[in-house]
Amino acid sequence: MENNDLLLKLEKKYSGELFDNVIPFWLRYSLDKECGGYCSCIDYDGTVFDTDKYAWMQGREIFVFSKLCILYGIKDEWRNAAKHGVDFMLAHGKAMNGDYYFALDRSGRPLIQPYNIFSDCFLCIGFADYSLIAETEEERTRAKDEALRLYQRIQIRKSNPKGVWSKQVPGGRSLQVMSMPMIEAMLAIELQGFLGDDVVQQKEDEVLRLFLDRHVDRNRKCVFERVNPDGSLMLDVMEGRLLNPGHALEILWFLMTIAEGRHDQATIDDLSEIMLWCIDRGWDEKYGGIFYYRDYENRPLDKFESDMKLWWVHVEAINAFLLAWKLTGKPIFRDWFLKIDEWTWSHFPDHEHGEWYGYLSRQGEVASTLKGGKWKGFFHLPRMLYTCSGWLKEMQA
Amino acid sequence: MENNDLLLKLEKKYSGELFDNVIPFWLRYSLDKECGGYCSCIDYDGTVFDTDKYAWMQGREIFVFSKLCILYGIKDEWRNAAKHGVDFMLAHGKAMNGDYYFALDRSGRPLIQPYNIFSDCFLCIGFADYSLIAETEEERTRAKDEALRLYQRIQIRKSNPKGVWSKQVPGGRSLQVMSMPMIEAMLAIELQGFLGDDVVQQKEDEVLRLFLDRHVDRNRKCVFERVNPDGSLMLDVMEGRLLNPGHALEILWFLMTIAEGRHDQATIDDLSEIMLWCIDRGWDEKYGGIFYYRDYENRPLDKFESDMKLWWVHVEAINAFLLAWKLTGKPIFRDWFLKIDEWTWSHFPDHEHGEWYGYLSRQGEVASTLKGGKWKGFFHLPRMLYTCSGWLKEMQA
Repeated sequence: MENNDLLLKLEKKYSGELFDNVIPFWLRYSLDKECGGYCSCIDYDGTVFDTDKYAWMQGREIFVFSKLCILYGIKDEWRNAAKHGVDFMLAHGKAMNGDYYFALDRSGRPLIQPYNIFSDCFLCIGFADYSLIAETEEERTRAKDEALRLYQRIQIRKSNPKGVWSKQVPGGRSLQVMSMPMIEAMLAIELQGFLGDDVVQQKEDEVLRLFLDRHVDRNRKCVFERVNPDGSLMLDVMEGRLLNPGHALEILWFLMTIAEGRHDQATIDDLSEIMLWCIDRGWDEKYGGIFYYRDYENRPLDKFESDMKLWWVHVEAINAFLLAWKLTGKPIFRDWFLKIDEWTWSHFPDHEHGEWYGYLSRQGEVASTLKGGKWKGFFHLPRMLYTCSGWLKEMQA
Repeated sequence: MENNDLLLKLEKKYSGELFDNVIPFWLRYSLDKECGGYCSCIDYDGTVFDTDKYAWMQGREIFVFSKLCILYGIKDEWRNAAKHGVDFMLAHGKAMNGDYYFALDRSGRPLIQPYNIFSDCFLCIGFADYSLIAETEEERTRAKDEALRLYQRIQIRKSNPKGVWSKQVPGGRSLQVMSMPMIEAMLAIELQGFLGDDVVQQKEDEVLRLFLDRHVDRNRKCVFERVNPDGSLMLDVMEGRLLNPGHALEILWFLMTIAEGRHDQATIDDLSEIMLWCIDRGWDEKYGGIFYYRDYENRPLDKFESDMKLWWVHVEAINAFLLAWKLTGKPIFRDWFLKIDEWTWSHFPDHEHGEWYGYLSRQGEVASTLKGGKWKGFFHLPRMLYTCSGWLKEMQA
């Protein structure tokens, strides 16, 4: 009973924030009524401080506005907002080879080549969800076809995602990065119903295997961001020692969602245990919150932001520990969820102007006033808010 | 007289630091006795924490050890240290097209393609200075030939320095960056005696014109890092508003050195005035020190390190204001020099383990314990120490 009160209170907080503090901010400030598409570089007070349009941010915003219609029923302003991005990207976003440019200027003129496969991944799930809510049959078909075409291109490109723009010397070091299985886990979850069940299951098997066999080191109780193709480590260089707790927790809740769909409690328990390794290494005992990067041997990193506290790391950690609590019922996950929830909600939200700050110093002070930028848009935060409020409802039942 | 005491005291501090606290650190920890070349990723206590070898850092370390021999007379350990880098890079560093790889592994195997023209610029001045101090005629000739070959390649590559690795869409936005004229100013200074006098003078004219016509905005009293080819501004995007006070002060003292060589007092006075605009915008009134990046309209930046205090920014500012003091005699430059000197020397040096920290928080606390890394090597600090102690001697005379 006491637990149910807590769950109800939490659910109200999460859904209230989504509808009252986050969605209105993006509806009000991000849509470029003049040129189409979304401006994502938005200062604390809603001022657009850069008009370039980044494909990651366009795809993600299309995805979340479409998802809101799927989850809560179609509302014209959400559907129109999704259409705003879809029309702009279909008109301007595609390079000759069918991949999407990384960046366009305000009018849609291409600026940066299609070197980044994640642009296409976010657009793929955006078009897929939009195909379920678009107003006309023609739009639905066009969006679905584009999503499936992109999925196929991603499968072809993924072994060498940067293509001609890769700076790696062929035949040199070939560390495998965790971002590729992570994004494929996201595709497996979001494209259910679009791909055949057998294709989805095969993809799920593949990402589970890649993550558990390559990136998880059970002796060291550690998840490594970059490993050799055979899963061995390269500990004499920084890039081989890199730990990224937010990334690890994000893929862990993706994989746990997959395991939940398969009613595979053994994998759920295993993944939940690995979450604890990540938070033990990532939590800042001195100031609270979760570090962006760590070095396995606590040596220096070449990334300035290593000690900073970033919004996406915290919201993905909230997802991870709430899901682990829901699926295992163990108090340790409840406790971690509540601890991360408390730190996150007392540091990131801005209830005066809406939305959350994204970049805090190690001490938890606002380090940048931006609410959106080249890498922060309408994605991690709203996804966490709708995902968690859904889980919190289930947990009350 | 009082002034002379101050100058003498300063000169002792600067040269003492060079010989007692900086050179010994690099001689002791950076030379890879087993595989050749230099390790530049060195923690506060001398521990090498990454064994990859970066061409920027190899070229810079060759240059400084050679320069020490030129300035203070040949010492075997300096010359051998320079030779250590020269032999490694000549054996392993060059790609098929004659440009230098950006990074090699410890053994010399190439890792990152030769996409970065600054690798070749630093190696060019390194080989040039080494050619003046090498032990054998054969080594001298080989180093000189390689320096001149690189200079010619740089002239060919400079209009499209990243070549096939550029992600810019051709015909799209073409902002001109200040780093290219800056590095060409460095080449003009360091390659005197290698290139014909007419070539040097032409290069000097070119960089002075590019900087003053394009990057200096006299109405706004501001130096912009990126401008349109005609010198007009692009203020609706972050990259067009970017201010980089350390970069601006570095090119300003290069150009002032050129103007000094030409006995052009009008240009010296003009450049010194522009230095004041840069320090006015860059100085942190709250915590002291110089910001890394600013936005012209004080909007957010997408660079995490914007508020941080970096060693190279401060040592280049010291060069700038000491030279302006020396060449104009005006108290305002003396005052700024002393203010920056005071903040710098009370925050960066480590007298326990040697060398200086590189990365401080805005508040001036050590943000990373590294003494050397992928981007910090044996260059800005020793160059400033030998340059300033030379100027301080001249000023006493």
